[in-house]
Amino acid sequence: MKTHKILQAPIPMRWVGPMKLSGHLIEEKLSVPLATYETPLWPSVGRGARISTLCEEGIKVSVIDERMTRSILLEAEDAYAAHQAIQSLKARMDDLNEVVAKSSRFAKLIDINSQVVGNLIYLRLEFTTGDASGHNMVTNAADHLIPWILTEYPHLQYSSISGNYCSDKKATAVNGILGRGKYVVCEILIPRDIVERRLHSTPEKIVDLNIKKNLIGTMIAGGLRSANAHYANMLLAFYLATGQDAANIIEGSQGVVHADVRNGDLYFSCTLPNLIVGSVGNGKGIDFVEENLERLGCRDDREPGANARRLAAICGATVLCGELSLIAAQTNPGELMQSHLQMERK
Amino acid sequence: MKTHKILQAPIPMRWVGPMKLSGHLIEEKLSVPLATYETPLWPSVGRGARISTLCEEGIKVSVIDERMTRSILLEAEDAYAAHQAIQSLKARMDDLNEVVAKSSRFAKLIDINSQVVGNLIYLRLEFTTGDASGHNMVTNAADHLIPWILTEYPHLQYSSISGNYCSDKKATAVNGILGRGKYVVCEILIPRDIVERRLHSTPEKIVDLNIKKNLIGTMIAGGLRSANAHYANMLLAFYLATGQDAANIIEGSQGVVHADVRNGDLYFSCTLPNLIVGSVGNGKGIDFVEENLERLGCRDDREPGANARRLAAICGATVLCGELSLIAAQTNPGELMQSHLQMERK
Amino acid sequence: MKTHKILQAPIPMRWVGPMKLSGHLIEEKLSVPLATYETPLWPSVGRGARISTLCEEGIKVSVIDERMTRSILLEAEDAYAAHQAIQSLKARMDDLNEVVAKSSRFAKLIDINSQVVGNLIYLRLEFTTGDASGHNMVTNAADHLIPWILTEYPHLQYSSISGNYCSDKKATAVNGILGRGKYVVCEILIPRDIVERRLHSTPEKIVDLNIKKNLIGTMIAGGLRSANAHYANMLLAFYLATGQDAANIIEGSQGVVHADVRNGDLYFSCTLPNLIVGSVGNGKGIDFVEENLERLGCRDDREPGANARRLAAICGATVLCGELSLIAAQTNPGELMQSHLQMERK
Amino acid sequence: MKTHKILQAPIPMRWVGPMKLSGHLIEEKLSVPLATYETPLWPSVGRGARISTLCEEGIKVSVIDERMTRSILLEAEDAYAAHQAIQSLKARMDDLNEVVAKSSRFAKLIDINSQVVGNLIYLRLEFTTGDASGHNMVTNAADHLIPWILTEYPHLQYSSISGNYCSDKKATAVNGILGRGKYVVCEILIPRDIVERRLHSTPEKIVDLNIKKNLIGTMIAGGLRSANAHYANMLLAFYLATGQDAANIIEGSQGVVHADVRNGDLYFSCTLPNLIVGSVGNGKGIDFVEENLERLGCRDDREPGANARRLAAICGATVLCGELSLIAAQTNPGELMQSHLQMERK
Repeated sequence: MKTHKILQAPIPMRWVGPMKLSGHLIEEKLSVPLATYETPLWPSVGRGARISTLCEEGIKVSVIDERMTRSILLEAEDAYAAHQAIQSLKARMDDLNEVVAKSSRFAKLIDINSQVVGNLIYLRLEFTTGDASGHNMVTNAADHLIPWILTEYPHLQYSSISGNYCSDKKATAVNGILGRGKYVVCEILIPRDIVERRLHSTPEKIVDLNIKKNLIGTMIAGGLRSANAHYANMLLAFYLATGQDAANIIEGSQGVVHADVRNGDLYFSCTLPNLIVGSVGNGKGIDFVEENLERLGCRDDREPGANARRLAAICGATVLCGELSLIAAQTNPGELMQSHLQMERK
Repeated sequence: MKTHKILQAPIPMRWVGPMKLSGHLIEEKLSVPLATYETPLWPSVGRGARISTLCEEGIKVSVIDERMTRSILLEAEDAYAAHQAIQSLKARMDDLNEVVAKSSRFAKLIDINSQVVGNLIYLRLEFTTGDASGHNMVTNAADHLIPWILTEYPHLQYSSISGNYCSDKKATAVNGILGRGKYVVCEILIPRDIVERRLHSTPEKIVDLNIKKNLIGTMIAGGLRSANAHYANMLLAFYLATGQDAANIIEGSQGVVHADVRNGDLYFSCTLPNLIVGSVGNGKGIDFVEENLERLGCRDDREPGANARRLAAICGATVLCGELSLIAAQTNPGELMQSHLQMERK
Repeated sequence: MKTHKILQAPIPMRWVGPMKLSGHLIEEKLSVPLATYETPLWPSVGRGARISTLCEEGIKVSVIDERMTRSILLEAEDAYAAHQAIQSLKARMDDLNEVVAKSSRFAKLIDINSQVVGNLIYLRLEFTTGDASGHNMVTNAADHLIPWILTEYPHLQYSSISGNYCSDKKATAVNGILGRGKYVVCEILIPRDIVERRLHSTPEKIVDLNIKKNLIGTMIAGGLRSANAHYANMLLAFYLATGQDAANIIEGSQGVVHADVRNGDLYFSCTLPNLIVGSVGNGKGIDFVEENLERLGCRDDREPGANARRLAAICGATVLCGELSLIAAQTNPGELMQSHLQMERK
Repeated sequence: MKTHKILQAPIPMRWVGPMKLSGHLIEEKLSVPLATYETPLWPSVGRGARISTLCEEGIKVSVIDERMTRSILLEAEDAYAAHQAIQSLKARMDDLNEVVAKSSRFAKLIDINSQVVGNLIYLRLEFTTGDASGHNMVTNAADHLIPWILTEYPHLQYSSISGNYCSDKKATAVNGILGRGKYVVCEILIPRDIVERRLHSTPEKIVDLNIKKNLIGTMIAGGLRSANAHYANMLLAFYLATGQDAANIIEGSQGVVHADVRNGDLYFSCTLPNLIVGSVGNGKGIDFVEENLERLGCRDDREPGANARRLAAICGATVLCGELSLIAAQTNPGELMQSHLQMERK
């Protein structure tokens, strides 16, 4: 075998569903492709999907923000000079966007956040990036901005194209607070009898376990902006099946489950403030990825960004299906292991 | 296309290397398989690998701890009863291991850590698991332990098989502090002239950028036990190519780069306290995975655990290669984007 | 006024209570001194105290662990040498305790935890320290241990008496996970009618607000091992009144409120895993401090450590009183501000 | 002794200095009052202060942001309704400020940040508050805003006056990222010979220890936006002496030391992004507080906010003095303990 030949790592993949989605972006039933070595994930997500089809509004999905970020690192003479340069830059968004426009048709600078540490400047540039997740687009935009900034502000010095205040693929708080990727909230209202018959649990038990495990348990583990059982599993499988940079499950998996008993029924929600997905760009040229995106309806002729938001909505709903199913299973002693064993024996 | 058929998601994969490893576990040159949509990763890791072959000891790898964990969640009458039950359980490791032995030939309970919150008990059971990463093994062990505990301590109540104090696939502090997976440290000493000629940088620039980007930048981003540029990318690609549960890059990517100028040369180290890998178990039956593991020498006839430690060592060295290469690139304005563009045009 | 004269900053102080305590350490009613500029704290804690006297068991307090820590920072040749030195040291607890004994009658080394980063060694030495909070005692013990270690392990080098892995007065996760100070849990069961009549709220409202504010709210704020409304206020006031090093409210305030509706009544608990207090030592020679400690019954003739545990128990109960009162107040729109205004007008 | 009488807790206090300050706010030498039980702090800060007088520009202080926050907690029907309400509110800053104006002459709403979790709304209201630290001012403003919001948006429901996304007196990331209190940066350039003669260290040693202890050590401890040795000590002592709510050292102590060798000299900086201080308001009516504030020149006739910024600048410089002194001491084995012993024997 020659070392430098491009080979393939074929990951097992299955379509799971259908699940039922509603909300401001999407109203339909659809199945999703999940590529993973952890094949018990398929029936687990499948169970959640079936539940959604039994609920009046299914999974209500809201996509309430989107941006991709890159934090460049510059140095000034001292902290006050750093502050003044930042203030000046923030007041010149139009000038900056002119430079950005030369790097891409789609990138648009929408906000700047910053930190000053001693004389160091961490400038978090925040862009909309159309249907792309936007990693390269914002790096390219930053690469155009840096020489312009250094010319306009000759007392500043280059330190790095990325100062880790972006933050890309790290467990940080900044992405949730300032935004990175799509901010997706998925909600479902499940009648009590469906919880009892299909999940072999009760709304009270699920709410209780969410508090003790996802909220308190993660918190005492020293968790950071995270309260869920296994967002990471669904994200990985969905990302691999749709050509996403799956290392972004690091920030994507930092999200919160909030559940509540409402009039005896179960309100269950998954908030994903940092869901990074794109329907075009790197990883998307591969045949099976194209097919999957098309089948998900995310390669249709829509305004820039709409296909990516649709993809984010579907991804979020998939996370909810898997999360609901696992939490319900863990309310019953022995159920988790049994289902793993059954699956593996198949 | 029928929904429930098992399909494949073929991820592009390439062997990269060779890299040179040394240390208490391994002394050889070898290449590694990396499966990823982010193909610029290949030449990036390849550059680091080449550097390693030019250094006297190559990448020195130490694997200094290993364990897999599951935290069960129980409830007592009050906090003091919770405390007393924990104290009693900690004093009965032999009894517990008898129960564990019924669940697996390989699992061995080596430590228990705990937290009490009100009357809740979070019991973090820590096992060695042979050559398996051990997720299912510890779940199964916990599933055997729970009924035994509830019988022996009838005043305790079941709450969950997992209380998120494990912590599996979440950004937390507990894994780094108490251990989960292999604790791997990789170190390299690179002569100044190699840094200058091959990385187009200097030891001073690389040390400086590590401080400002990885240490300070991640910290102000609200990072948690994390100071690196892109561990996640190498982990994902290595995990996919070797049949690992890649969602474990969440905790795996929480690690620290420490660099130093030593007598004019560059000391560069990557510490990975939570590297979860296995050479057997789930995901390993697939043909290309078996081939890759064999070619890496991780399916040889060794004592239980030795193949997995070898795999962890190789994985850690791969992370160092990619990390070194990116940090060096970012010391030069424009270099990162240029190399991405070159790669994509190919 | 001459600069170097020792002056006084007289902080307003009031005794608040009585509150009712029960549990394995203490069964009595007592009042507590609180010194603070934020005088609305007095009636707030007072309200919680009154509630406790109306509950059958009052506030049940458990003190389930105690230790004080200092993390020295050493360097080895490489990571593996670092690991081997640590393993050797952990196997020689008796030898180490001989050295410790020369530094203090009370300090006793009970555990060692460690981290290796590259070739750096962070050695977290954990001691019991009798009735003292123990900051100086452990620094002194470490100061005796360091030369001994450097002699026994001549390939190690000194880097610092403190490597911040202790961690003293910083917001970290290590203290909660490995322990620092007393681990105190306070619980109370409040009959529904008392919640309604005295707190003008309901068990359901208080449980609900604890989830949404203390658990979810703190978590999305990027909180670290923290889920409470204002532990810090009670700790500061109690610390100042009893001669404690009040900068330790940093770690002391990292704790969790867990509340639950039980048979229609309110279960409310405050867990404080890092409560650093001492009944002797620095800050204790001052007259009013001595008087306060005596009146609290924390200067009685008891076995070493018992007075400090008693003090920790009382401090924890005080935190519960204030926390309960504020959470209850915030369930009612306008109540918080109104009570502040009333207090300030007095 | 009657329980409800107001007593006093006289904390030992000393004026320390003079220190030399420069920058956009202040150019002078002055001493500072420090009230603490930890009296070795006085000579420690004193040593740093003396160093500052030997440096050409002394301590250069920049105050680059200020705000006080309160996060109210509301509920909507679902996430999308939550999002729409937030968007509408953010577009009505003038309307909101009209309501705020009724609550205070000084409070001015300058920004709103938000989080949506399921159907929950965390609305972080950010105000300037003149010379007051502003806790009560923003609570009062929020208390006026809530009924107005509930009237204008009748589909929203009250949940709490504070949702912990503020975040007051908790170890979180949000305050550093979005701002709370004054954002203060203090920098000093110390000639090598002064470092050697006065601090018995070298620039290289201090830079090195800052990296290994403050940056790496805190990070592996699971630290959150924190990299310093003991900010908390100086803050506590300064806060008590100037009538501040000292529980705010929780967020105040989350800051970063960045040090560098520059042309052989030592650049040493302390960044404090969350320094909460006020020159008027609660705690300020007490005689010794008034005297201290006057002597610090923080009760002069200036535009609203200027006295508080001056106070923040002085506080920040005090933190730098103590931090520099301790870090330098820890570069030398045994020095820390020795100085404590000397102090206590006095």
